[in-house]
Amino acid sequence: MPRESGTKRAILDAALDLAAANGISGTTMDDVAVRAGVAKGSLYYNFSSKDKLFEQLLLEGVGTLTECLRNARSGLTGWQAIESMVRALLELLSENRALAKLMAAEILRTDRTWQHSLHLLRQEALAEFVEPIRQTGVPSGLPDGGSDHGSDQLTLIAGSVFGATLMGALDWLVFDPERSVEDVAAAVLYALSGRLKS
Amino acid sequence: MPRESGTKRAILDAALDLAAANGISGTTMDDVAVRAGVAKGSLYYNFSSKDKLFEQLLLEGVGTLTECLRNARSGLTGWQAIESMVRALLELLSENRALAKLMAAEILRTDRTWQHSLHLLRQEALAEFVEPIRQTGVPSGLPDGGSDHGSDQLTLIAGSVFGATLMGALDWLVFDPERSVEDVAAAVLYALSGRLKS
Repeated sequence: MPRESGTKRAILDAALDLAAANGISGTTMDDVAVRAGVAKGSLYYNFSSKDKLFEQLLLEGVGTLTECLRNARSGLTGWQAIESMVRALLELLSENRALAKLMAAEILRTDRTWQHSLHLLRQEALAEFVEPIRQTGVPSGLPDGGSDHGSDQLTLIAGSVFGATLMGALDWLVFDPERSVEDVAAAVLYALSGRLKS
Repeated sequence: MPRESGTKRAILDAALDLAAANGISGTTMDDVAVRAGVAKGSLYYNFSSKDKLFEQLLLEGVGTLTECLRNARSGLTGWQAIESMVRALLELLSENRALAKLMAAEILRTDRTWQHSLHLLRQEALAEFVEPIRQTGVPSGLPDGGSDHGSDQLTLIAGSVFGATLMGALDWLVFDPERSVEDVAAAVLYALSGRLKS
């Protein structure tokens, strides 16, 4: 690995650790330089501002998420794809707790310079859920939606599936980390199975 | 309303506005005093520390949530209760966006002095979902769970239902706020209806 790339990685990792503990607002470029063990000149050579640094961190995180979901549904359709994606997402969250924390904290903010690019990537991640949901049949009896903002009904349903998985993961990772991923996946999939309705 | 209570309310509202914009770490007691229009002496008379102030704010928020869910399921059981709670939760989130943002940001933190009391109240809120889920029938084919941490399978399922609703609300409030609560509720309930599986 080239030296510059190693420095970039060290900076990104340090920023993630600090922001997971103190929030992005509570993290300064000085803190990041100290934690990464790099001079401030080197820090600013790699990232011209704190905004650029955290933008790259968050965009990388959503990219990893999308790739994980895409791999999980490869060769599968419909409910089987959804099952596989729920499991893969739980595993990803359990392996990247600091990033999951940071992204949960960012999810409702509207005052960030990276808002737009993060939104676009987020839609890409949700689209991975949209495809198998579409394969289970076009929702009938639902309002048509289809707004320009990508919040049509299929995206809302995808968001709900994602949210069901995410919140299951939070309970698990924060309060009961010894539990197996299969246990947690079973509970999340139960919530989506319709057995609550029948 | 007694004068002290009015001051307390003004301080809590100011702290909420500031923290929703800048995070708790990015909010100082000085900022809160200025925004609330109170002297620092008065601020510290009402809340002895920043931790105490945000603890009360978050605990109040979870209390409101629990009460809202309890009212929504009053007189209903099973899926009908769940439907009503999903709608009520969406309405509550849409009316309290600043608090919803703040609570989303706090949800994965483990370094707060209020962690324990927030966890207990959070379990109370989830318990409102647990009861109607239990009424739909004891989950069969699921691991038994029953840990001391309250993360048994029913709580995990309740967390998934809550998460499905929360994430549906986020998409809605951030990206498509003109959409009606009924549209969003329909999408969330679709995700939970089992039609993804059939």
